[in-house]
Amino acid sequence: LVTVDAVVENVHFKARWSSPRQIGRRSFLVNASDIAAMGGQPRFCVVSIGVPPRYSARSLLQLEAGIVDAATASGAVVVGGNLSRSEQLFVSVTLIGDAPRRLVTRHGARPGDRVYVTGTLGDAALAVERLSGRAGAKVAPPVLRRLLEPSPRVRAGQILADKGLASAMIDVSDGLVQDLGHLCRASRVRGVIRATDVPVSVAYRRACGTERRLALSGGEDYELLCTVPARHVKHLEDVRRQLACPITCIGEITRGRGVRIVGAQGGVVYESTGGYDHFRTPTT
Amino acid sequence: LVTVDAVVENVHFKARWSSPRQIGRRSFLVNASDIAAMGGQPRFCVVSIGVPPRYSARSLLQLEAGIVDAATASGAVVVGGNLSRSEQLFVSVTLIGDAPRRLVTRHGARPGDRVYVTGTLGDAALAVERLSGRAGAKVAPPVLRRLLEPSPRVRAGQILADKGLASAMIDVSDGLVQDLGHLCRASRVRGVIRATDVPVSVAYRRACGTERRLALSGGEDYELLCTVPARHVKHLEDVRRQLACPITCIGEITRGRGVRIVGAQGGVVYESTGGYDHFRTPTT
Repeated sequence: LVTVDAVVENVHFKARWSSPRQIGRRSFLVNASDIAAMGGQPRFCVVSIGVPPRYSARSLLQLEAGIVDAATASGAVVVGGNLSRSEQLFVSVTLIGDAPRRLVTRHGARPGDRVYVTGTLGDAALAVERLSGRAGAKVAPPVLRRLLEPSPRVRAGQILADKGLASAMIDVSDGLVQDLGHLCRASRVRGVIRATDVPVSVAYRRACGTERRLALSGGEDYELLCTVPARHVKHLEDVRRQLACPITCIGEITRGRGVRIVGAQGGVVYESTGGYDHFRTPTT
Repeated sequence: LVTVDAVVENVHFKARWSSPRQIGRRSFLVNASDIAAMGGQPRFCVVSIGVPPRYSARSLLQLEAGIVDAATASGAVVVGGNLSRSEQLFVSVTLIGDAPRRLVTRHGARPGDRVYVTGTLGDAALAVERLSGRAGAKVAPPVLRRLLEPSPRVRAGQILADKGLASAMIDVSDGLVQDLGHLCRASRVRGVIRATDVPVSVAYRRACGTERRLALSGGEDYELLCTVPARHVKHLEDVRRQLACPITCIGEITRGRGVRIVGAQGGVVYESTGGYDHFRTPTT
């Protein structure tokens, strides 16, 4: 498996929110998440960094240490890299991983499959919203950590793939509705999600109450979203403890196209056609 | 083999000199040159592109076509990529190649080895010098082509590695003196070059006469620089025709450290200590 992803200053991060070490960690982790979503194991990475002349050697070393830290924690090794001068800081990481015996892609979801998501959603988007707002807005530390130091679900992805539980999988980087849309488009099916079942953190609930907008549409959580055939749901319960993270059923796959979100009263609160129309914010 | 290299607008290219297709080609070729310098075969590449909002979709498609063209010509396939928003155009290519049976690195040069270089040197630097000078400066088309569309010596690198001819190899990207310095530092030897033997093009000789400054210190020619044990020189003559490019003996490896350039009268015109001191322009 080979994946490449870049983080660019003022596009994917702001230097005043993130330390150089966090920027480095993040540049690796967004790639590890892509490998996790196929059930793979991160192995080797090469790094291409664009550095503005004003960037200090100290910051650059910390950024590189962040990449190495995150790689080591995922069982991968940084084997090479390239430094370029650039007006804007960017870090592009290419990660090579071992494929699992049973490769999981976005294409395998079938009507009747259940939709599951790991961990909780919305914290990263909540942190961005707070940080972008008026100065002095408070962000709870666990919420901020989800934005700055995402934890890719490498172990969970491997188990879901290896045991043949997931029929399709993707990581939640653009937001639940968008990424489920990608999966459904690739599999030519419809995803139906119960908004009230989407798992959120204690901190999220404290900040947003029952409002699920950010959990449904906010990106950068790097959780895994997968579909599980109904006949494997029992088996999933058996291995649940090995995943090292919560996993929650939030809906199911039906015939059709696109994504449908069902609210607390059972009404449809959002529906996409499955085309490439830009995502409209759902209201719950 | 895995290599990564980035080209950044206004650092590695200027949009007013290069078409989008040439920028794309170049971003691939600088990586193919690294694989060539180990005797490898380019196979798979992934591309990370940072695109300014003002960049047209048409230009982006041409840039991508340039990458695909260059990859195909080298026997490689583009297997994936990532687009990011960025203020400054950058293209970072990661290239994965097959290693040859006998891998050649920078470490194998020994005293007594001959130093060889493929093709001619200095055209790319001559083009940069002319283009950077006063407006309207004329650049001969073959000189300009060397800058905008370098031809990595993939076939030559494979033969030099596979037949066991080269004891060490590197591509000339930073300039002959600098890259020979890298090779000598890695091999813990000294390189002695005869300035008058450094091969230049007809167009270069027409523009610079006997002056070899740009051929010695100018970068971006993407020729191969290798060392050949004296006992293999006869064998190299035998395969010379298969290389698909000229190859010229320009000096030899001795005990010691650093790089020494000898002028027409046999005097030392440049000498480096082999440390990391920044290269001073030699005069010939």
